[in-house]
Amino acid sequence: MDLVTFGETMLRLSPPGQERLERATELEFRAAGAESNVAVAAGRLGLETTWLSKLPDSPLGRKVTATLRAQGTEPAVAWSESGRQGVYFLEQAGEPRGTNVVYDRTDAAVTTATPADLDVSRVEAADYFFTSGITPALSATLADTTRDLLARARESGATTALDVNYRSKLWDSTTARAELESLFPHVDVLFVARRDARRVLDREGDAPAIARGLSEDFDFGTVVVTRGEDGAVAFHGGETVEQSVFEAETHDAVGTGDAFVGGYIARRAQGGDIVDALEWGAATAALKRTIPGDVALVTPAEVDAVLDGNTADIDR
Amino acid sequence: MDLVTFGETMLRLSPPGQERLERATELEFRAAGAESNVAVAAGRLGLETTWLSKLPDSPLGRKVTATLRAQGTEPAVAWSESGRQGVYFLEQAGEPRGTNVVYDRTDAAVTTATPADLDVSRVEAADYFFTSGITPALSATLADTTRDLLARARESGATTALDVNYRSKLWDSTTARAELESLFPHVDVLFVARRDARRVLDREGDAPAIARGLSEDFDFGTVVVTRGEDGAVAFHGGETVEQSVFEAETHDAVGTGDAFVGGYIARRAQGGDIVDALEWGAATAALKRTIPGDVALVTPAEVDAVLDGNTADIDR
Amino acid sequence: MDLVTFGETMLRLSPPGQERLERATELEFRAAGAESNVAVAAGRLGLETTWLSKLPDSPLGRKVTATLRAQGTEPAVAWSESGRQGVYFLEQAGEPRGTNVVYDRTDAAVTTATPADLDVSRVEAADYFFTSGITPALSATLADTTRDLLARARESGATTALDVNYRSKLWDSTTARAELESLFPHVDVLFVARRDARRVLDREGDAPAIARGLSEDFDFGTVVVTRGEDGAVAFHGGETVEQSVFEAETHDAVGTGDAFVGGYIARRAQGGDIVDALEWGAATAALKRTIPGDVALVTPAEVDAVLDGNTADIDR
Amino acid sequence: MDLVTFGETMLRLSPPGQERLERATELEFRAAGAESNVAVAAGRLGLETTWLSKLPDSPLGRKVTATLRAQGTEPAVAWSESGRQGVYFLEQAGEPRGTNVVYDRTDAAVTTATPADLDVSRVEAADYFFTSGITPALSATLADTTRDLLARARESGATTALDVNYRSKLWDSTTARAELESLFPHVDVLFVARRDARRVLDREGDAPAIARGLSEDFDFGTVVVTRGEDGAVAFHGGETVEQSVFEAETHDAVGTGDAFVGGYIARRAQGGDIVDALEWGAATAALKRTIPGDVALVTPAEVDAVLDGNTADIDR
Amino acid sequence: MDLVTFGETMLRLSPPGQERLERATELEFRAAGAESNVAVAAGRLGLETTWLSKLPDSPLGRKVTATLRAQGTEPAVAWSESGRQGVYFLEQAGEPRGTNVVYDRTDAAVTTATPADLDVSRVEAADYFFTSGITPALSATLADTTRDLLARARESGATTALDVNYRSKLWDSTTARAELESLFPHVDVLFVARRDARRVLDREGDAPAIARGLSEDFDFGTVVVTRGEDGAVAFHGGETVEQSVFEAETHDAVGTGDAFVGGYIARRAQGGDIVDALEWGAATAALKRTIPGDVALVTPAEVDAVLDGNTADIDR
Amino acid sequence: MDLVTFGETMLRLSPPGQERLERATELEFRAAGAESNVAVAAGRLGLETTWLSKLPDSPLGRKVTATLRAQGTEPAVAWSESGRQGVYFLEQAGEPRGTNVVYDRTDAAVTTATPADLDVSRVEAADYFFTSGITPALSATLADTTRDLLARARESGATTALDVNYRSKLWDSTTARAELESLFPHVDVLFVARRDARRVLDREGDAPAIARGLSEDFDFGTVVVTRGEDGAVAFHGGETVEQSVFEAETHDAVGTGDAFVGGYIARRAQGGDIVDALEWGAATAALKRTIPGDVALVTPAEVDAVLDGNTADIDR
Repeated sequence: MDLVTFGETMLRLSPPGQERLERATELEFRAAGAESNVAVAAGRLGLETTWLSKLPDSPLGRKVTATLRAQGTEPAVAWSESGRQGVYFLEQAGEPRGTNVVYDRTDAAVTTATPADLDVSRVEAADYFFTSGITPALSATLADTTRDLLARARESGATTALDVNYRSKLWDSTTARAELESLFPHVDVLFVARRDARRVLDREGDAPAIARGLSEDFDFGTVVVTRGEDGAVAFHGGETVEQSVFEAETHDAVGTGDAFVGGYIARRAQGGDIVDALEWGAATAALKRTIPGDVALVTPAEVDAVLDGNTADIDR
Repeated sequence: MDLVTFGETMLRLSPPGQERLERATELEFRAAGAESNVAVAAGRLGLETTWLSKLPDSPLGRKVTATLRAQGTEPAVAWSESGRQGVYFLEQAGEPRGTNVVYDRTDAAVTTATPADLDVSRVEAADYFFTSGITPALSATLADTTRDLLARARESGATTALDVNYRSKLWDSTTARAELESLFPHVDVLFVARRDARRVLDREGDAPAIARGLSEDFDFGTVVVTRGEDGAVAFHGGETVEQSVFEAETHDAVGTGDAFVGGYIARRAQGGDIVDALEWGAATAALKRTIPGDVALVTPAEVDAVLDGNTADIDR
Repeated sequence: MDLVTFGETMLRLSPPGQERLERATELEFRAAGAESNVAVAAGRLGLETTWLSKLPDSPLGRKVTATLRAQGTEPAVAWSESGRQGVYFLEQAGEPRGTNVVYDRTDAAVTTATPADLDVSRVEAADYFFTSGITPALSATLADTTRDLLARARESGATTALDVNYRSKLWDSTTARAELESLFPHVDVLFVARRDARRVLDREGDAPAIARGLSEDFDFGTVVVTRGEDGAVAFHGGETVEQSVFEAETHDAVGTGDAFVGGYIARRAQGGDIVDALEWGAATAALKRTIPGDVALVTPAEVDAVLDGNTADIDR
Repeated sequence: MDLVTFGETMLRLSPPGQERLERATELEFRAAGAESNVAVAAGRLGLETTWLSKLPDSPLGRKVTATLRAQGTEPAVAWSESGRQGVYFLEQAGEPRGTNVVYDRTDAAVTTATPADLDVSRVEAADYFFTSGITPALSATLADTTRDLLARARESGATTALDVNYRSKLWDSTTARAELESLFPHVDVLFVARRDARRVLDREGDAPAIARGLSEDFDFGTVVVTRGEDGAVAFHGGETVEQSVFEAETHDAVGTGDAFVGGYIARRAQGGDIVDALEWGAATAALKRTIPGDVALVTPAEVDAVLDGNTADIDR
Repeated sequence: MDLVTFGETMLRLSPPGQERLERATELEFRAAGAESNVAVAAGRLGLETTWLSKLPDSPLGRKVTATLRAQGTEPAVAWSESGRQGVYFLEQAGEPRGTNVVYDRTDAAVTTATPADLDVSRVEAADYFFTSGITPALSATLADTTRDLLARARESGATTALDVNYRSKLWDSTTARAELESLFPHVDVLFVARRDARRVLDREGDAPAIARGLSEDFDFGTVVVTRGEDGAVAFHGGETVEQSVFEAETHDAVGTGDAFVGGYIARRAQGGDIVDALEWGAATAALKRTIPGDVALVTPAEVDAVLDGNTADIDR
Repeated sequence: MDLVTFGETMLRLSPPGQERLERATELEFRAAGAESNVAVAAGRLGLETTWLSKLPDSPLGRKVTATLRAQGTEPAVAWSESGRQGVYFLEQAGEPRGTNVVYDRTDAAVTTATPADLDVSRVEAADYFFTSGITPALSATLADTTRDLLARARESGATTALDVNYRSKLWDSTTARAELESLFPHVDVLFVARRDARRVLDREGDAPAIARGLSEDFDFGTVVVTRGEDGAVAFHGGETVEQSVFEAETHDAVGTGDAFVGGYIARRAQGGDIVDALEWGAATAALKRTIPGDVALVTPAEVDAVLDGNTADIDR
């Protein structure tokens, strides 16, 4: 198995167009979560991918697995008689209203997931293992399980990757910092938004300085600092690499960061160097912005076309 | 205020037509609950109605109040910073698949509602007060609050009504029986399905016997026993009244029982006798079956037309 | 031109499924009217058909002509700067609610249509001319125009046909009788529902007696009396012919009568005798009931299949 | 009651996306009108609001009241057996096609509304009373009723407000000027678009000059002149205040002006000064542009966020 | 791998409700084919299933694989640069119109599939191998490939099953008989509709006689003859077993036969005897009729509930 | 007949919004083709137009004719028992994904159309005859038929027009050049995109040079070279005319070129000079970009408004 990811996937309920939730009479119904988003993006770009989690044994849980399988990622799920299916309501809107998220994920089945529940042999057979800072934020149990899986993956020879992905609605920055720093010894590749580096990890300076500093302090193999429209910076092997964004007409911005990580890992796992991987990440992220829903339902040919600048016309 | 009801109203998410939840890509989005369904039906038929409850202060809570207001019932809501908005997923299907409900209502904001949270002056000003056996099943707090409100209403001179509405997914029949029987001293009018009378209240015999027996044992002013396609039986003032159902082409059966109760109360509160009220209940229930969603969005003229047998043609 | 019809075509706005108008957030949008329904059905079954009318010069008027052209009937329209586009709201429902129609057709552009507005050369070139009792009910001007066109058509050698189609929302039965009887001298073929014959034309007896009586009193070439599920009866050439209905699973009953007339005229105009024409009418009407909207969007092969009893299977 | 408004609310029928009316097969179905739009916006921002009008007693009239109640404004309606429900068809489009409106509002029930029809006690109990220049344009009766209600409100101590809102499809500018100027003696706060001030009220000069001039000529307490993307100017207490617009990604521009007035009145009625009120007006208008339909379905927190410049990110 | 099936899966395009194709403005978009339908049904009921085929390397081909994966069946696909994606248009309608299918499957990529294209190791590892008489009808190449795979499967120890599934639009009955009889020596379990047995295989007599006769003439281990509403008959081990249908409210009848086969094979492959398997087949078929689309998206618990007669109520 | 066009019209299947084909569950269903697009645009702007083609006698073929008739163009169709209905799948997307077209048009019925199949009397009666370079690319038969019709039209006195419209998915540029140049002797007005002139016709230089060169080499009456956002250039009567584009908010760019040609021809056929015609072409093209689907469903008044710069406001 090339890539195994671990985390929560929620059901996403969103009104059509820019309608308000309180007036909507129908909702679009999708499934999405940071770790499965990364798996799907990487899977679309050539990796064999598995998403590990725990779900309620219900039509809602099956909606999640059906969605992931359709997108090419294999769910390896502990089916549970207890615990809810996490849900979030998403209201898309332009400025100044902005997009609004209402989470309803408390007591999700995944919050009780222990290594004993999960098919850890998948983790032990992985080349890459990925999770995000959302997972340990969901429960104390999940924090322990996250640490266990990261350690287990690394011991089995996998490259481990973590995206900080701070969620202020789940925990405060002090708790988050302590928990995340306890995970860092098991992590090879760290992804962190510049803003999160500052407000959670208390880093100062610009993105290159943050990348280098984190790398030196925690001995990461690679640190990738993302900074929205200003692109990404990686520190790896003592060197700094910068990558700008590809322009995109944004249709649905949710999941852009996950697409970046998925593109990056797909390229690295297929032998690309850091420069290649950042380019793939940026191209996958740009394509994602044109696609409704949270996942980068792309093809390698589409990523190639972005990298070749070959995207302007209707091809007929 | 003519009628005040108290209970939980959930958001209802259902695939279009008979599609399966796990494959659906869009869901119809409505709001519904036994007690607000009763209030809406009675309100449509002429009563001034208020629905008392506690909701999360979010777009989801506001979806509930907007829906009820649109349907003519005034929500009197304690807005809460904690607690969820209850949700249920509904899959409509014909036989032999049958309609399937997935509840997701744990830890709803309403489960912590105390009399201190609520505008009890509304209850004290009511002519009729209604709740169902679902409400005390939701939490120990709600069981206490239900008892308090029933007692308070009765002391203030309201007629109090309770629909047993047993939900096996919420509590077992032994617990339900104990709790419900503790409420009965505060109840004037009891509605109970024959099936619930047997499995929860341990009643035997046919519907007339059940109605008479409950009335005698608990000193109810009126007991109405419903028995599905076989119609309803009431015991009141020492006499038994039977009411058959009006034929209907069923489009959406959910909420039929609540429509019956709403029609009954509307007529009683407007001076009808038991025979009148049972007829209005049965007519409202028949109309409900032709209407999508859980509520009887009817007019008095439509109920009259059913009672007059005046329903066969397109009027143009 | 084989068949020219004259009358009003309205826009039809209806909630999806059985939703109530007052809660609907979207409406299906179609165009329909008795006379254009007849033209479309006959056109689908082989006649060249024209629909004569007056419409407002607006996107709403163009919606009407685009719809008719798509269905194969040529609109010959006087475009007007004044007058509204007639609209009706339709709520489909099963029993006991029943289907409900809200007309909003007052002051439609067509109500001012005079022979001078219209391309009467079309009428003069027609083999068949058809209108319904709705048209003279819409305005005094239209009553005059209807009489003029019927007379003109007959003088030019066309067979003229009228469907009584009484609408109690448009006029009372006394006024209707007087007006209709003033048209009868110009009519060759009369279609009338048994119920309308009784309440408007004050006829008594069963359908065969009504058909014969009308024929004798007004010297019609043919009288066809329809009686819903009991089929139709024609009196022609001194003989009575009966036609039963073909069974149908009703999806949308509106327009069934117009489909019957369209099928009948199509067959007559193509040389069929009364027996043939009644069969085609009944088959077209049965097919119509399976089709959403007001018109019989059928093919000759489908009518043949009904007549051959050849309709039971999926053909693959 | 904090705010009472008086006027017509129509049903709005619009094709999805940018589809053309004449090809559309379904229409979105909403209710909207200048005066109820103002009431809804102000109600969402904290006022108790009532909308006074006359409606046909039909499912169409009930669609209007259900919509307003859902949005938090109480309809106080004279139900009528005669008169139509006004309707308008709206085709949204980008440049150079532009958005197109087809009105169908002639002979609406409201056009016959007299003070005797209406619950004028609501007007007499109001803190604020609002109507627009559309209302007197609809019929001579309504012009009289508008004058009566403005006078009555003012005598009862309400602040009266009028938005000129010139509609060239309803009356010519000379008639409009005469009628509006006959209302001005009863008006405290005048809202007028710079363009209307010029073409209807024959004002010259820039917006500040217009505001001051109108104020001096007609003795208004406040005059607010709006000028589209250039923001608004108020003249009040001898001073001029300017307010620029907040940038917005426009999803649906219809109703922007009403949202401005609603936000302004909400703030004034809650004690804000002119500067505050203009800011709230501008923020509410900017939010409106992101919301489908005619009304500003906003929350006070959203307006605060616009004023704080706190709108850039997904909050999670 | 428990079950491998081989055949064509098409894209299904159907108007919503009972709308006509020539007037539809949107189409439902699904994927379906006899052999993948069987695989999905069996997979839902517990088997590991693979569908073997050849598809165009395009978004249309990927729509097919995504759909099958979502439904739990693994596609093992030869991706092709040439050949089309087969499509069919389906118009659902009640009697007398009936459901109508327009195939557009000529030159599909699968028609050139040879054993060399396909991952035949899957066939060799299968416990069960299934195909239908549609597959050899699609091209001479496919006829050869079908024979090869059936022979290969049987030699590798699989139980081979064939459903005759005669399609008169693909070949005449004489050609079909010759081709099918050349496949029979490689087939263990034959499914055939009574009608096909008569018109294609020239069998006479009732279903039990047909089952026994085919079994004796071609040495099948099992023959199952289906006869629509009259249920199925199997001949196996010298004995005849009958199975009636379970009543169902039909929402979409397409795919009922495939659901029967899938349920049957699932039960047999999991150790059930013929009686069990026929019951599962009949229960799965009844459930299918309640589900939109061609596949039996069921659960084992639902099949159990049908067999237990436990389907009457909403469970809450 | 003012304008006759000849070519293929396909059915267009596209996911709503920017959804991906492989995940879509419903598709918009329209009909479109270069030559019918031109006919519709010209017909909307005042010409009587006929579209000549060959279609399968099926609901799919009838969907094409119903669509064209609704849009005001008369189809003159040879109905065929063999041959497919061409289809294309369209995925709309912003940059960098871009819009993607999947053609499925092989073996369409039209590919066998000969002059003997078609109602060539229409061509002989035409004032203008138009086809595009797509038509001869579809089959050798069609190449011959195209040449025959162009020659026939010209001999009958029509002005003949050809739009090069190169499709690399249909033929290579060398073949295309040879075939097109064999048509040029029969062509009066040539439309060609600058890009096609370069890659297919091997022209060099800027657009004015290309226009003049082609005109001189092939003796065209008029050559119009289009260059996307840079507008168009015509060479006619020894003079060069330039036309810039009108700004448009693009909703659906497909068919912009056809709208240009349709607007141009409409104006020329109604007596406009080259300058007028280019302006109408550009205005029609700009309007098209605001309209979903492939055709310019416009009115002359809308084109006038663009030319007058009179497009900025909602008119009410």
